[in-house]
Amino acid sequence: MSAQTLRDRLAGGRPLFMSWSMLPGTLGAELLAQQPWDACVIDMQHGLIGYQEARDMAATVMALDKPTVVRVPVGAHGLMGRVLDIGVEGLIAPMVNTGEDARALAAATKYPPVGERSWGAYRAIGSAGLGQEDYLAAANGLAVSFAMIETRTALDNLDEIAATPGIDGLFVGPNDLTISLTGGTSLDAMGTPEVREAISLIAAKASENGLVAGIYCGTPDFALTHAELGYSFLAVGTDRGFLAEGAANALARLGRG
Amino acid sequence: MSAQTLRDRLAGGRPLFMSWSMLPGTLGAELLAQQPWDACVIDMQHGLIGYQEARDMAATVMALDKPTVVRVPVGAHGLMGRVLDIGVEGLIAPMVNTGEDARALAAATKYPPVGERSWGAYRAIGSAGLGQEDYLAAANGLAVSFAMIETRTALDNLDEIAATPGIDGLFVGPNDLTISLTGGTSLDAMGTPEVREAISLIAAKASENGLVAGIYCGTPDFALTHAELGYSFLAVGTDRGFLAEGAANALARLGRG
Amino acid sequence: MSAQTLRDRLAGGRPLFMSWSMLPGTLGAELLAQQPWDACVIDMQHGLIGYQEARDMAATVMALDKPTVVRVPVGAHGLMGRVLDIGVEGLIAPMVNTGEDARALAAATKYPPVGERSWGAYRAIGSAGLGQEDYLAAANGLAVSFAMIETRTALDNLDEIAATPGIDGLFVGPNDLTISLTGGTSLDAMGTPEVREAISLIAAKASENGLVAGIYCGTPDFALTHAELGYSFLAVGTDRGFLAEGAANALARLGRG
Amino acid sequence: MSAQTLRDRLAGGRPLFMSWSMLPGTLGAELLAQQPWDACVIDMQHGLIGYQEARDMAATVMALDKPTVVRVPVGAHGLMGRVLDIGVEGLIAPMVNTGEDARALAAATKYPPVGERSWGAYRAIGSAGLGQEDYLAAANGLAVSFAMIETRTALDNLDEIAATPGIDGLFVGPNDLTISLTGGTSLDAMGTPEVREAISLIAAKASENGLVAGIYCGTPDFALTHAELGYSFLAVGTDRGFLAEGAANALARLGRG
Amino acid sequence: MSAQTLRDRLAGGRPLFMSWSMLPGTLGAELLAQQPWDACVIDMQHGLIGYQEARDMAATVMALDKPTVVRVPVGAHGLMGRVLDIGVEGLIAPMVNTGEDARALAAATKYPPVGERSWGAYRAIGSAGLGQEDYLAAANGLAVSFAMIETRTALDNLDEIAATPGIDGLFVGPNDLTISLTGGTSLDAMGTPEVREAISLIAAKASENGLVAGIYCGTPDFALTHAELGYSFLAVGTDRGFLAEGAANALARLGRG
Amino acid sequence: MSAQTLRDRLAGGRPLFMSWSMLPGTLGAELLAQQPWDACVIDMQHGLIGYQEARDMAATVMALDKPTVVRVPVGAHGLMGRVLDIGVEGLIAPMVNTGEDARALAAATKYPPVGERSWGAYRAIGSAGLGQEDYLAAANGLAVSFAMIETRTALDNLDEIAATPGIDGLFVGPNDLTISLTGGTSLDAMGTPEVREAISLIAAKASENGLVAGIYCGTPDFALTHAELGYSFLAVGTDRGFLAEGAANALARLGRG
Ligand SMILES: [Mg+2]
Ligand SMILES: [Mg+2]
Ligand SMILES: [Mg+2]
Ligand SMILES: [Mg+2]
Ligand SMILES: [Mg+2]
Ligand SMILES: [Mg+2]
Repeated sequence: MSAQTLRDRLAGGRPLFMSWSMLPGTLGAELLAQQPWDACVIDMQHGLIGYQEARDMAATVMALDKPTVVRVPVGAHGLMGRVLDIGVEGLIAPMVNTGEDARALAAATKYPPVGERSWGAYRAIGSAGLGQEDYLAAANGLAVSFAMIETRTALDNLDEIAATPGIDGLFVGPNDLTISLTGGTSLDAMGTPEVREAISLIAAKASENGLVAGIYCGTPDFALTHAELGYSFLAVGTDRGFLAEGAANALARLGRG
Repeated sequence: MSAQTLRDRLAGGRPLFMSWSMLPGTLGAELLAQQPWDACVIDMQHGLIGYQEARDMAATVMALDKPTVVRVPVGAHGLMGRVLDIGVEGLIAPMVNTGEDARALAAATKYPPVGERSWGAYRAIGSAGLGQEDYLAAANGLAVSFAMIETRTALDNLDEIAATPGIDGLFVGPNDLTISLTGGTSLDAMGTPEVREAISLIAAKASENGLVAGIYCGTPDFALTHAELGYSFLAVGTDRGFLAEGAANALARLGRG
Repeated sequence: MSAQTLRDRLAGGRPLFMSWSMLPGTLGAELLAQQPWDACVIDMQHGLIGYQEARDMAATVMALDKPTVVRVPVGAHGLMGRVLDIGVEGLIAPMVNTGEDARALAAATKYPPVGERSWGAYRAIGSAGLGQEDYLAAANGLAVSFAMIETRTALDNLDEIAATPGIDGLFVGPNDLTISLTGGTSLDAMGTPEVREAISLIAAKASENGLVAGIYCGTPDFALTHAELGYSFLAVGTDRGFLAEGAANALARLGRG
Repeated sequence: MSAQTLRDRLAGGRPLFMSWSMLPGTLGAELLAQQPWDACVIDMQHGLIGYQEARDMAATVMALDKPTVVRVPVGAHGLMGRVLDIGVEGLIAPMVNTGEDARALAAATKYPPVGERSWGAYRAIGSAGLGQEDYLAAANGLAVSFAMIETRTALDNLDEIAATPGIDGLFVGPNDLTISLTGGTSLDAMGTPEVREAISLIAAKASENGLVAGIYCGTPDFALTHAELGYSFLAVGTDRGFLAEGAANALARLGRG
Repeated sequence: MSAQTLRDRLAGGRPLFMSWSMLPGTLGAELLAQQPWDACVIDMQHGLIGYQEARDMAATVMALDKPTVVRVPVGAHGLMGRVLDIGVEGLIAPMVNTGEDARALAAATKYPPVGERSWGAYRAIGSAGLGQEDYLAAANGLAVSFAMIETRTALDNLDEIAATPGIDGLFVGPNDLTISLTGGTSLDAMGTPEVREAISLIAAKASENGLVAGIYCGTPDFALTHAELGYSFLAVGTDRGFLAEGAANALARLGRG
Repeated sequence: MSAQTLRDRLAGGRPLFMSWSMLPGTLGAELLAQQPWDACVIDMQHGLIGYQEARDMAATVMALDKPTVVRVPVGAHGLMGRVLDIGVEGLIAPMVNTGEDARALAAATKYPPVGERSWGAYRAIGSAGLGQEDYLAAANGLAVSFAMIETRTALDNLDEIAATPGIDGLFVGPNDLTISLTGGTSLDAMGTPEVREAISLIAAKASENGLVAGIYCGTPDFALTHAELGYSFLAVGTDRGFLAEGAANALARLGRG
């Protein structure tokens, strides 16, 4: 558990910018966690990262007193508890398209009476520095559950998703949302008015329901733009991109660009 | 396959006490397997253990001629066959709350006509020392499938679960059961009369249906008490707890308790 | 992406013979990929192979310009995208028994509008050497999705499965099909007329629907026989079998057979 | 780098008691590091721990602000820098039998002009929170180098070893010392007067030369006894022992002792 | 420790034939250990196998009650104890060219008074089922140390090497020996009379000194020939070769040879 | 073996620029190998990379037809063959300070009659696509052996090192050289005239002896400067640096620099 929890930071009114790790390995994750990111995301959906690797990366980032968030694969309800048991402070679930999806997310990530999360988070309890009964009382507030809104179906069901008890935030996946809204023909979120409108709508619905609004941002400019639109939980770039960019800069200076 | 199978030992009338591994790593699992436990459980639900690690730990314990049992994550039907293919002798499935859950567990862990387990357990066949046709004939009897009863919903559906063909045992999760029955407010199983009654009921239903009654026990005393209540498959403590206790004893003797 | 894609090779009219890896480890997979197999399969269902291992094995085989196919566990829809994100050219899904199963397979493996695959395959994009928009346009044609037909239920629903948009091939699992059709009493596919008829029917249905017909073959002879029956995607033997056979040959020459 | 460095703690006048990890795996190491041990040792000599595992375990313990010490295998001079590059605060080298051995240890673990350690400890620099020039200036004082005294030859060369610049402490290996002094016939350090005398002598020589006196202790009582004899760096028990003891206690309470 | 130790089997008068593993991974090693090989070798010199992998493979083979032998890299004295600590029954050291090399091998692999092996083999002690004092008394006889004779220099020093206390066997490396004797121009051992003579001489010297004579054999025929020449410890083929051969046989039957 | 070997490229007259990997993990190494670097270095000395990881990273880079070079730890002669057995095209040995060090490097990396490398590089033979006899004839020319010149002692012995048969190149370590020449007080190579002179001298000695001149370069500018000074094998930056720089750029654009 970081000294100031992710939930506290989200309540602070300032947008949070997060790194996004897709490369397996603790040392790269650690290097990013040593930078002034507000939190670090480990992506088990599209990062080619297995559970064992994600667990070790999460533990590494947590050790640096940095809030750690894991994106899980689609429909991975059985994995969600195993991720929360590590003690991470946030979980992003992709493709939450219906109220049923949202209730399944809440069930998997919250203890009763909100959900059906199963007991046994011994590492998380140790990290939180709480006794077992206190952890039980606090746990539903310790880790933030984000539902990704990234399809037309999800937009159709947005009210029901946003109103689901146990959902703490909405998180926009602009690429998938654009693919969905364009029938599989485009990745250009900013160039697609319907996507831009949806992104505004999602922020508004989050606000209405007292939820955090989050979004994946391919670039810092995209992040800054959306911070102004009310998004407060913004993932920026990826370790793949950062590594490639740093190396490409060197190549360019060597005339090999 | 151990010299005396888990099923044989369960039929022996004596309660079986089992260690419970939550720490990844073959050497710790091996150390426990060298002690006089009746069987060893590897916990993939709340132990922070990935498939690769669980496979290697299970193979290590099996090598010592000790019955090996794996607890899988919630709803991990696709994983169940991959665990049985290793050749373990028991599988514990958490959160079996409905007859449908029980049928899905049976389907995933038993070959036709009982279930729909898929063929390809080449390591298990080698471990069992059987030809392929003989393994097919014997397999549904070689590994024991436990349904965890640990919610109010499961109690409501207990008759249907217990009567499901292919289910070999009921396994109580006292922590989750207490959380469920107290609406998320307590972990004190022994202090909650409704939990105590449910635990008695589950043993009775197991007996009625010719099923093994199993239970997770946080302490040896809890295990001894429940052995007297008719439970014959009792998991006691965890490697985390044993390691911490042994080290804490040393610290206490050093005046650092 | 191999120089000549799997799809191209399948269109070439010649039956493709594939190795089948069940042993974790990149070096054994590489050794097979250096032989003149048409493609290499990595089996995550019955091979005791975790995601991290499968990813590394797939990358190793792909590096040798050899089409790589992964068989995933039963119902592992969340894993399918993580496998395709590696950049493999084929995916085999076991136990596709109903039209609903087939639609779920298509949904998980194809981008909209055919399915609901989620965006983020950065390694695959790099391997394909395409820009992002071009990859989106091409991706549904780059990787071949096979539905395994291996139960009586699947035969009952064969028309619906075969007609499902996004399904590229049918793949017979003779062992499970025999178990299913014999009520769990036999593994002898060739000795069971009903199985032989079903295998013929599946090839015919594949042909009718413009799908590839594939089959798992325990022996080269089984493969040759079924190549003549119209099967063009034939998995032959396993690394376990090859290793055991090569070693047994040496033992036999040493008089230790 | 821990908040209070190992060197500072050693200067504090109070004996330090350390856990001793022989089981690969970060989670067990973490569990011990969460207890009030003064430091944690990771044993690469007799623990069955590879470099990758030791690196991850060391990083895990360091993350908890606990001084981390690694024992390397015999003569592993090339490994010593790789261990210090992680950023650990102490290194124990076994079988330092001659002045030449001591100089090789100093050469491998100290930067010029004391030794010949090679530059490149980027993780350690990050952990220490220092700039590169400051790290270079400070590094020889940041990590403590222990020479194990555990043979008759080492006793014969004790003055030369203790006087070697760059050696920060002497560390007794009572088992090997007893084996050496008894010609391979005993492990009973306390029952062998010559061993007891040697242990007193080593403490005295350490004190004379301004070195820390350390010792491996099989039991807390052995540690307390030797703390009184002037040893201030005392390793107590092992994770193997702690795990086995905790589990054996449970078995005893179950009547299976 | 296998039921009948390697040393006992070697004393049995019958030549022992051993498999030779170069591929990392426990499952392939296990598969070979299930066949009627007399012992299994894990090659850390030319197999691309790290310590962690070798440890797990060795434990897997030992678990099947099969004598396990590890070949270590050149000059890896610090690693030798770490390999013996696992509990393997034999160790092969390459490039033992001088009496000094032989003494270093004996020092690293035998306890005093023969050598300087360091105490701490807790897994091996557990595997042997002995108390600590009994293990100390027995250990020098439990594991067999082989010196590889594979250069002209080694032949020049053969008497001194063979007479070194603590060396239990001589093991011929025919490829390196041929390269050495032909000045780097040939691999054809059987076609080089000087190599054939050297191989005869080594067997004679082993016999004279009461040592086991071992040899690496590329083929079963080479092994049978050398069994008749007095070699009793014969490594035959490799897992790489067995896997490739088994797969090539399948390809040949498919017309893809 | 890359399509155009490293040796060919070095003979091409154009300076080669190389990436330098210190982070374990195949996917980051692959990403760099997909960029227009002339070769990729994997650093086992100061990168926190174990053998298993380095092997997998090397195989990944080789698969992309990119020359792969490994820097080994100090004095790791037993490891050198294990690295060359993978099939890499270059090996950099740190701290080659004396003629004896140079001869040990040549012995470990070249087959007779130049050195004493041991036979068994089966993966490398497969990668090179050569028969065994042809590989033996070619191998000493396939992989380039670099001796690092990075201490005052090495400068004193430069003629002897450079004249050692089997040494193919000299490789400057500017940090260690500066530390050595300044008595451990500075890292400022360019600000230390004695270092600048030594760097010029090393290039001249390389040229005189027909050796490749290589150097580690912290920045592209340092590389360009030294390319003009006659260095043709220039390592530029590290993956740690590239990742940190790319991420820091993003943070800066976010106002968190
Ligand atoms: Mg998405
Ligand atoms: Mg539970
Ligand atoms: Mg099947
Ligand atoms: Mg010792
Ligand atoms: Mg050899
Ligand atoms: Mg250097």
